[in-house]
Amino acid sequence: MIKNVDHIGIAVKSIREILPFYTEVLNLTLEHIEEVESEKVSIAFLSIGQMKIELLEPTSNESAIAKFIDKRGEGIHHIAFGVESIDERIHQLKTEGIRMIHDHAKKGAGGKNIAFLHPKSTGNVLIELCEKEKGVKSL
Amino acid sequence: MIKNVDHIGIAVKSIREILPFYTEVLNLTLEHIEEVESEKVSIAFLSIGQMKIELLEPTSNESAIAKFIDKRGEGIHHIAFGVESIDERIHQLKTEGIRMIHDHAKKGAGGKNIAFLHPKSTGNVLIELCEKEKGVKSL
Repeated sequence: MIKNVDHIGIAVKSIREILPFYTEVLNLTLEHIEEVESEKVSIAFLSIGQMKIELLEPTSNESAIAKFIDKRGEGIHHIAFGVESIDERIHQLKTEGIRMIHDHAKKGAGGKNIAFLHPKSTGNVLIELCEKEKGVKSL
Repeated sequence: MIKNVDHIGIAVKSIREILPFYTEVLNLTLEHIEEVESEKVSIAFLSIGQMKIELLEPTSNESAIAKFIDKRGEGIHHIAFGVESIDERIHQLKTEGIRMIHDHAKKGAGGKNIAFLHPKSTGNVLIELCEKEKGVKSL
Protein backbone atom coordinates (compact mmCIF):
# COMPACT_ATOMS: atom_id res chain seq x y z
CA MET A 1 0.00 0.00 0.00
CA ILE A 2 2.65 2.50 1.14
CA LYS A 3 6.27 2.90 0.07
CA ASN A 4 7.66 5.50 2.44
CA VAL A 5 7.02 8.70 4.35
CA ASP A 6 7.30 11.36 1.64
CA HIS A 7 7.02 14.37 3.92
CA ILE A 8 5.71 15.82 7.18
CA GLY A 9 3.59 18.95 6.84
CA ILE A 10 3.90 21.66 9.51
CA ALA A 11 1.51 24.63 9.77
CA VAL A 12 3.35 27.91 10.45
CA LYS A 13 2.24 31.52 10.68
CA SER A 14 5.32 32.79 8.86
CA ILE A 15 7.87 30.79 6.88
CA ARG A 16 10.23 33.76 7.04
CA GLU A 17 10.20 33.79 10.85
CA ILE A 18 10.63 30.07 11.50
CA LEU A 19 12.93 29.22 8.57
CA PRO A 20 16.22 30.06 10.38
CA PHE A 21 15.34 27.45 13.01
CA TYR A 22 15.18 24.76 10.33
CA THR A 23 18.06 25.93 8.14
CA GLU A 24 20.51 27.44 10.64
CA VAL A 25 19.80 25.59 13.89
CA LEU A 26 18.79 22.15 12.55
CA ASN A 27 20.93 22.62 9.42
CA LEU A 28 18.33 21.31 6.98
CA THR A 29 18.59 22.35 3.34
CA LEU A 30 15.90 24.60 1.90
CA GLU A 31 15.03 23.24 -1.52
CA HIS A 32 12.55 25.83 -2.71
CA ILE A 33 9.48 27.86 -1.78
CA GLU A 34 6.33 27.57 -3.86
CA GLU A 35 2.90 29.18 -3.71
CA VAL A 36 -0.05 26.84 -4.26
CA GLU A 37 -2.85 29.22 -5.17
CA SER A 38 -5.61 26.61 -5.11
CA GLU A 39 -4.78 25.84 -1.45
CA LYS A 40 -3.98 29.45 -0.52
CA VAL A 41 -0.63 28.50 0.98
CA SER A 42 3.07 29.12 0.52
CA ILE A 43 5.15 26.01 1.04
CA ALA A 44 8.84 25.75 1.92
CA PHE A 45 10.42 22.36 1.23
CA LEU A 46 13.34 21.26 3.39
CA SER A 47 15.15 18.00 2.74
CA ILE A 48 16.14 15.56 5.46
CA GLY A 49 17.52 12.19 4.36
CA GLN A 50 15.16 10.70 1.80
CA MET A 51 12.18 12.77 2.92
CA LYS A 52 11.07 16.35 3.33
CA ILE A 53 9.64 18.77 5.84
CA GLU A 54 6.95 21.00 4.31
CA LEU A 55 6.33 24.32 6.08
CA LEU A 56 2.83 25.53 5.18
CA GLU A 57 2.01 29.23 5.58
CA PRO A 58 -1.52 30.45 4.81
CA THR A 59 -1.77 33.24 2.21
CA SER A 60 -5.45 33.91 3.07
CA ASN A 61 -7.71 33.61 6.10
CA GLU A 62 -9.80 31.21 3.99
CA SER A 63 -6.96 28.70 3.75
CA ALA A 64 -7.44 25.36 5.54
CA ILE A 65 -4.05 26.01 7.13
CA ALA A 66 -5.24 29.38 8.53
CA LYS A 67 -8.25 27.60 10.04
CA PHE A 68 -6.03 24.87 11.50
CA ILE A 69 -3.79 27.51 13.15
CA ASP A 70 -6.82 29.44 14.46
CA LYS A 71 -8.19 26.29 16.07
CA ARG A 72 -5.08 24.44 17.28
CA GLY A 73 -2.17 26.82 16.91
CA GLU A 74 0.90 26.22 14.80
CA GLY A 75 2.28 22.69 14.70
CA ILE A 76 2.43 19.39 12.89
CA HIS A 77 -0.40 19.25 10.36
CA HIS A 78 -0.12 16.02 8.37
CA ILE A 79 1.95 13.00 7.36
CA ALA A 80 2.26 12.19 3.66
CA PHE A 81 2.88 8.63 2.54
CA GLY A 82 4.39 7.96 -0.87
CA VAL A 83 2.34 5.58 -3.04
CA GLU A 84 2.20 4.33 -6.62
CA SER A 85 -1.05 4.09 -8.62
CA ILE A 86 -2.83 6.53 -6.31
CA ASP A 87 -6.28 6.04 -7.82
CA GLU A 88 -6.06 2.30 -7.21
CA ARG A 89 -4.94 2.96 -3.64
CA ILE A 90 -7.91 5.31 -3.05
CA HIS A 91 -10.28 2.68 -4.43
CA GLN A 92 -8.70 0.02 -2.21
CA LEU A 93 -9.00 2.21 0.92
CA LYS A 94 -12.65 2.95 0.21
CA THR A 95 -13.33 -0.76 -0.32
CA GLU A 96 -11.83 -1.34 3.14
CA GLY A 97 -14.24 1.17 4.66
CA ILE A 98 -11.85 4.12 4.95
CA ARG A 99 -13.45 7.53 4.46
CA MET A 100 -11.56 9.81 2.06
CA ILE A 101 -11.56 13.63 1.98
CA HIS A 102 -10.72 13.31 -1.73
CA ASP A 103 -12.35 10.49 -3.68
CA HIS A 104 -10.07 11.24 -6.61
CA ALA A 105 -6.46 12.43 -6.65
CA LYS A 106 -5.88 16.13 -7.24
CA LYS A 107 -2.79 18.15 -8.07
CA GLY A 108 -0.73 19.26 -5.10
CA ALA A 109 2.58 21.06 -4.64
CA GLY A 110 5.38 20.01 -6.97
CA GLY A 111 2.91 18.58 -9.50
CA LYS A 112 2.25 15.53 -7.33
CA ASN A 113 -1.04 13.67 -7.31
CA ILE A 114 -2.44 13.79 -3.80
CA ALA A 115 -5.47 12.74 -1.75
CA PHE A 116 -6.24 12.98 1.97
CA LEU A 117 -7.82 10.33 4.18
CA HIS A 118 -10.51 11.58 6.56
CA PRO A 119 -9.18 11.83 10.15
CA LYS A 120 -12.33 10.03 11.37
CA SER A 121 -10.89 6.88 9.77
CA THR A 122 -7.32 7.28 11.02
CA GLY A 123 -7.46 7.99 14.76
CA ASN A 124 -7.47 11.73 14.11
CA VAL A 125 -4.24 11.76 12.07
CA LEU A 126 -4.40 13.77 8.85
CA ILE A 127 -2.82 11.41 6.30
CA GLU A 128 -2.01 12.36 2.71
CA LEU A 129 -1.24 9.92 -0.06
CA CYS A 130 1.08 11.36 -2.67
CA GLU A 131 2.31 10.04 -5.96
CA LYS A 132 5.10 11.55 -7.99
CA GLU A 133 4.05 11.75 -11.60
CA LYS A 134 6.19 9.60 -13.82
CA GLY A 135 8.69 11.72 -15.70
CA VAL A 136 8.39 14.62 -13.24
CA LYS A 137 11.72 15.30 -11.57
CA SER A 138 11.58 14.92 -7.82
CA LEU A 139 11.54 18.26 -6.00
CA MET B 1 23.07 18.48 13.37
CA ILE B 2 20.47 15.94 12.21
CA LYS B 3 20.86 12.71 10.26
CA ASN B 4 17.32 11.65 9.51
CA VAL B 5 13.76 11.39 10.77
CA ASP B 6 13.92 8.42 13.15
CA HIS B 7 10.21 8.21 13.88
CA ILE B 8 6.89 10.02 14.13
CA GLY B 9 5.05 9.66 17.46
CA ILE B 10 1.25 9.41 17.42
CA ALA B 11 -0.89 9.62 20.58
CA VAL B 12 -3.67 7.02 20.61
CA LYS B 13 -6.26 6.02 23.18
CA SER B 14 -5.91 2.32 22.38
CA ILE B 15 -3.16 0.60 20.38
CA ARG B 16 -5.39 -2.48 20.08
CA GLU B 17 -8.19 -0.51 18.44
CA ILE B 18 -6.13 1.47 15.91
CA LEU B 19 -3.49 -1.17 15.12
CA PRO B 20 -5.48 -2.91 12.33
CA PHE B 21 -5.61 0.40 10.45
CA TYR B 22 -1.80 0.53 10.38
CA THR B 23 -1.09 -3.17 9.86
CA GLU B 24 -4.02 -4.33 7.72
CA VAL B 25 -5.11 -1.21 5.82
CA LEU B 26 -1.76 0.58 5.40
CA ASN B 27 0.15 -2.73 5.48
CA LEU B 28 2.89 -1.54 7.80
CA THR B 29 4.85 -4.13 9.77
CA LEU B 30 4.43 -4.21 13.56
CA GLU B 31 7.90 -4.68 15.03
CA HIS B 32 7.08 -4.94 18.69
CA ILE B 33 5.13 -3.43 21.57
CA GLU B 34 6.93 -2.20 24.66
CA GLU B 35 5.85 -0.62 27.93
CA VAL B 36 7.93 2.32 29.13
CA GLU B 37 7.07 2.52 32.82
CA SER B 38 8.89 5.80 33.47
CA GLU B 39 6.70 7.51 30.82
CA LYS B 40 3.53 5.57 31.68
CA VAL B 41 2.97 4.54 28.05
CA SER B 42 2.77 1.47 25.89
CA ILE B 43 4.45 1.94 22.53
CA ALA B 44 3.87 0.00 19.31
CA PHE B 45 6.64 0.35 16.72
CA LEU B 46 5.71 0.04 13.05
CA SER B 47 8.35 0.17 10.33
CA ILE B 48 8.00 2.17 7.13
CA GLY B 49 11.05 2.43 4.89
CA GLN B 50 14.02 3.49 7.01
CA MET B 51 11.88 5.02 9.73
CA LYS B 52 9.17 4.12 12.22
CA ILE B 53 5.73 5.12 13.37
CA GLU B 54 5.41 5.01 17.18
CA LEU B 55 1.88 4.60 18.55
CA LEU B 56 1.82 5.90 22.12
CA GLU B 57 -0.97 4.74 24.45
CA PRO B 58 -1.12 6.10 28.01
CA THR B 59 -1.11 3.49 30.78
CA SER B 60 -2.07 6.08 33.44
CA ASN B 61 -4.00 9.34 33.58
CA GLU B 62 -0.77 10.92 34.82
CA SER B 63 1.02 10.17 31.55
CA ALA B 64 2.00 13.16 29.39
CA ILE B 65 0.28 11.34 26.53
CA ALA B 66 -3.00 11.11 28.51
CA LYS B 67 -2.81 14.87 29.13
CA PHE B 68 -2.09 15.54 25.45
CA ILE B 69 -5.14 13.48 24.42
CA ASP B 70 -7.33 15.20 27.04
CA LYS B 71 -6.32 18.60 25.71
CA ARG B 72 -6.03 18.08 21.95
CA GLY B 73 -7.48 14.67 21.20
CA GLU B 74 -5.63 11.80 19.59
CA GLY B 75 -3.20 12.63 16.80
CA ILE B 76 0.39 13.34 15.81
CA HIS B 77 2.42 14.03 18.95
CA HIS B 78 6.07 14.52 17.96
CA ILE B 79 8.80 14.16 15.34
CA ALA B 80 12.03 12.46 16.36
CA PHE B 81 15.26 13.31 14.59
CA GLY B 82 18.17 10.87 14.67
CA VAL B 83 21.44 12.39 15.90
CA GLU B 84 24.90 11.31 16.97
CA SER B 85 26.63 12.63 20.10
CA ILE B 86 23.33 13.75 21.63
CA ASP B 87 24.90 15.57 24.60
CA GLU B 88 26.98 17.70 22.22
CA ARG B 89 23.86 18.41 20.15
CA ILE B 90 21.95 19.52 23.28
CA HIS B 91 24.83 21.79 24.27
CA GLN B 92 24.96 23.25 20.75
CA LEU B 93 21.19 23.91 20.70
CA LYS B 94 21.32 25.66 24.07
CA THR B 95 24.25 27.78 22.88
CA GLU B 96 22.08 28.83 19.94
CA GLY B 97 19.31 29.95 22.31
CA ILE B 98 17.03 26.92 21.95
CA ARG B 99 15.11 25.99 25.10
CA MET B 100 15.26 22.29 25.97
CA ILE B 101 12.72 20.26 27.96
CA HIS B 102 15.62 17.95 28.86
CA ASP B 103 19.01 19.53 29.47
CA HIS B 104 20.58 16.08 29.49
CA ALA B 105 19.69 12.99 27.49
CA LYS B 106 17.58 10.36 29.23
CA LYS B 107 16.71 6.77 28.39
CA GLY B 108 13.74 6.30 26.09
CA ALA B 109 12.08 3.33 24.42
CA GLY B 110 14.43 0.79 22.87
CA GLY B 111 17.31 1.93 25.07
CA LYS B 112 17.83 5.08 23.00
CA ASN B 113 19.17 8.31 24.47
CA ILE B 114 16.55 11.00 23.96
CA ALA B 115 15.87 14.67 24.72
CA PHE B 116 13.01 16.97 23.76
CA LEU B 117 13.24 20.57 22.55
CA HIS B 118 10.74 22.97 24.09
CA PRO B 119 7.90 23.77 21.64
CA LYS B 120 8.33 27.48 22.47
CA SER B 121 11.60 27.33 20.51
CA THR B 122 10.30 25.31 17.55
CA GLY B 123 7.08 26.96 16.33
CA ASN B 124 5.01 24.69 18.56
CA VAL B 125 6.38 21.43 17.13
CA LEU B 126 7.38 18.84 19.71
CA ILE B 127 10.80 17.68 18.50
CA GLU B 128 12.76 14.80 20.00
CA LEU B 129 16.42 14.11 19.43
CA CYS B 130 17.27 10.43 19.62
CA GLU B 131 20.54 8.59 19.50
CA LYS B 132 20.91 4.86 19.17
CA GLU B 133 23.46 3.64 21.66
CA LYS B 134 26.49 2.14 20.00
CA GLY B 135 26.30 -1.63 20.07
CA VAL B 136 22.54 -1.66 20.71
CA LYS B 137 20.74 -3.43 17.89
CA SER B 138 18.26 -1.18 16.09
CA LEU B 139 14.66 -1.96 17.01
